[in-house]
Amino acid sequence: MNGQGTAIVVGVGLIGGSVALALRRAGWYVVGVDTDAATAQHALATGVVDEVGGLGPCDLAVIATPVNLIAGLVQAALDAGAAVVTDVGSVKAPLAALLSDGRFVAGHPIAGSEQDGVSGANADIFSGSVWVLCPTADTDDAALSRVKEVVSVFGAQVLVMSPERHDELVAVVSHVPHLTAATLMRVAANHAEQQRNLLRLAAGGFRDMTRVAAGQPSIWPAICTQNSKAIVNVLDDLLTDLAWLREAVANQDEPALLTHLEGARVARRNLPTTAPDAQNMSEMRVPVLDRPGELAAIAVLATELDVNIFDLEIAHSSEGPQGVVVLLVESETAPKLSIALRERGYRPSIQPLG
Amino acid sequence: MNGQGTAIVVGVGLIGGSVALALRRAGWYVVGVDTDAATAQHALATGVVDEVGGLGPCDLAVIATPVNLIAGLVQAALDAGAAVVTDVGSVKAPLAALLSDGRFVAGHPIAGSEQDGVSGANADIFSGSVWVLCPTADTDDAALSRVKEVVSVFGAQVLVMSPERHDELVAVVSHVPHLTAATLMRVAANHAEQQRNLLRLAAGGFRDMTRVAAGQPSIWPAICTQNSKAIVNVLDDLLTDLAWLREAVANQDEPALLTHLEGARVARRNLPTTAPDAQNMSEMRVPVLDRPGELAAIAVLATELDVNIFDLEIAHSSEGPQGVVVLLVESETAPKLSIALRERGYRPSIQPLG
Repeated sequence: MNGQGTAIVVGVGLIGGSVALALRRAGWYVVGVDTDAATAQHALATGVVDEVGGLGPCDLAVIATPVNLIAGLVQAALDAGAAVVTDVGSVKAPLAALLSDGRFVAGHPIAGSEQDGVSGANADIFSGSVWVLCPTADTDDAALSRVKEVVSVFGAQVLVMSPERHDELVAVVSHVPHLTAATLMRVAANHAEQQRNLLRLAAGGFRDMTRVAAGQPSIWPAICTQNSKAIVNVLDDLLTDLAWLREAVANQDEPALLTHLEGARVARRNLPTTAPDAQNMSEMRVPVLDRPGELAAIAVLATELDVNIFDLEIAHSSEGPQGVVVLLVESETAPKLSIALRERGYRPSIQPLG
Repeated sequence: MNGQGTAIVVGVGLIGGSVALALRRAGWYVVGVDTDAATAQHALATGVVDEVGGLGPCDLAVIATPVNLIAGLVQAALDAGAAVVTDVGSVKAPLAALLSDGRFVAGHPIAGSEQDGVSGANADIFSGSVWVLCPTADTDDAALSRVKEVVSVFGAQVLVMSPERHDELVAVVSHVPHLTAATLMRVAANHAEQQRNLLRLAAGGFRDMTRVAAGQPSIWPAICTQNSKAIVNVLDDLLTDLAWLREAVANQDEPALLTHLEGARVARRNLPTTAPDAQNMSEMRVPVLDRPGELAAIAVLATELDVNIFDLEIAHSSEGPQGVVVLLVESETAPKLSIALRERGYRPSIQPLG
């Protein structure tokens, strides 16, 4: 035991193991739980966890299993007496629909690797990455603040958004790219059956594009099922664009191809870093009565307005029943959130950082 | 001037500049030619070339322009008195159909970068990479041997194949992946128009997959036109597989998705390195009369049989009219080449290296 408290990590694979290492580095005592005894023992032997155990009372439980198991294990962790529970799954809306306990904060670190399992675990993979949190109206302020503090210590950039918005976005930047990489690899492998040396011509570009296809396949079918609608929507867009491209190549329409590729280049070069650009950000301060649920209520209002929150905290007054919720939002989205807050009786102030 | 002779490099962009640097390092005197005077001067100022000039007599000319300009510039270099001419374009069959001068050896280094232009030039990009050569029945042995020696000194692994086979293979491992990366980037950018923060969720996998889309777009329309048939063929395969995948996701067919992803993983993990595996290779020695055209004739026969050659040289006897062509081929392909050679009166011997 030590100053931070006891954390239970359920599922000590690549991400769970990395969370365990990051927690230990931050001063937590970490109990690892895994249905695979060998994995759990390996995690213990390699210093990823302090002990191997089961669910029980704890200060924090992190569920890091395949997505189809998360809801049941979150509930089990809550039932076993965890003070705060979060998860790291890549689909959030089904969880939010199933769980309404104030101690649960749905999360998703946007980090990964083509490595497998606990041997690929690394506390540094979260540094500089985005960690999405999806609180609901049921979420306790204390639970939200605690999870936010923990992942900030890991070096991650918190981004608060609605579960539905999260699921749409990861379909675009993670799920469909992953499926496309796998499909490109299969198309190449099929061609290589007739011509073994084909793959020897694969240079860095192809290797980069297909690297994620080397990752653990077993987690993906459940992700596809849970996020089926958003993935199908993005795949339809991709199929439409690729069919258009196929016609442009068949028709040798060089101007159209150039326009297509130039647009892609501009977009790729403008790909933002994970860190928000302070020039475009504003700090919003919202005085609140110091009562439970104020932080979550404001966060959920923002996400309903499609205002993403890049940082959030609640500052409690040392005297009296006052507190201040402090949010970091993009400046262009601040006015609509401010108006909505005023309609609900809050008196927010906005301070542009740029 | 120096021991290796004078080389003229036409087009001192990323690849041409890299070839120029590699040639200089190998002891060549390099003249740079570029239609853009500023590019040529920049190449001179940064030590990529020894001088800026035009076409003229030389020991070696390397044409490193966009593919639509290559055939005309190869002919111009030949007409100007180049002893040997090669090119670095990524489409080979149209060139082979247009050019029949024995001094021309069509080539393609499988190397690149998302960088642009001469400022990204780097002599090391060829080290360990594959450099395809596509000789024809017209190709002089001396020209083929010379180009092979030069690129071997760059650290590249020579791979001899037919122009048609080359074009099919690069459609699979380079052209279609590039177009897919650009299209994925555009799909993401279109979604991001409604949701600016979407791209902030792009982690390493997405960044790796779309990196090539940041490269110079202007070279691609002509590549697509010249290799239109092969690219359309591979895009059709990709569209078919992605449409199948879309149905599997829509139907939440988890077993089918798992099989798809597992196949991709196995293929990705088995992606061969560029270096041939000596265990599977055989050296074939073919005694020949020491007369012009023997090396090219044997190389072309091999490519017609779909036998790729990983190394080749002609050893001339110091006495008498005998020589030996030495080829490195995959052991499983050696017998069919041996039979075809015997049918043509050669008496090859095979020595497995493994």
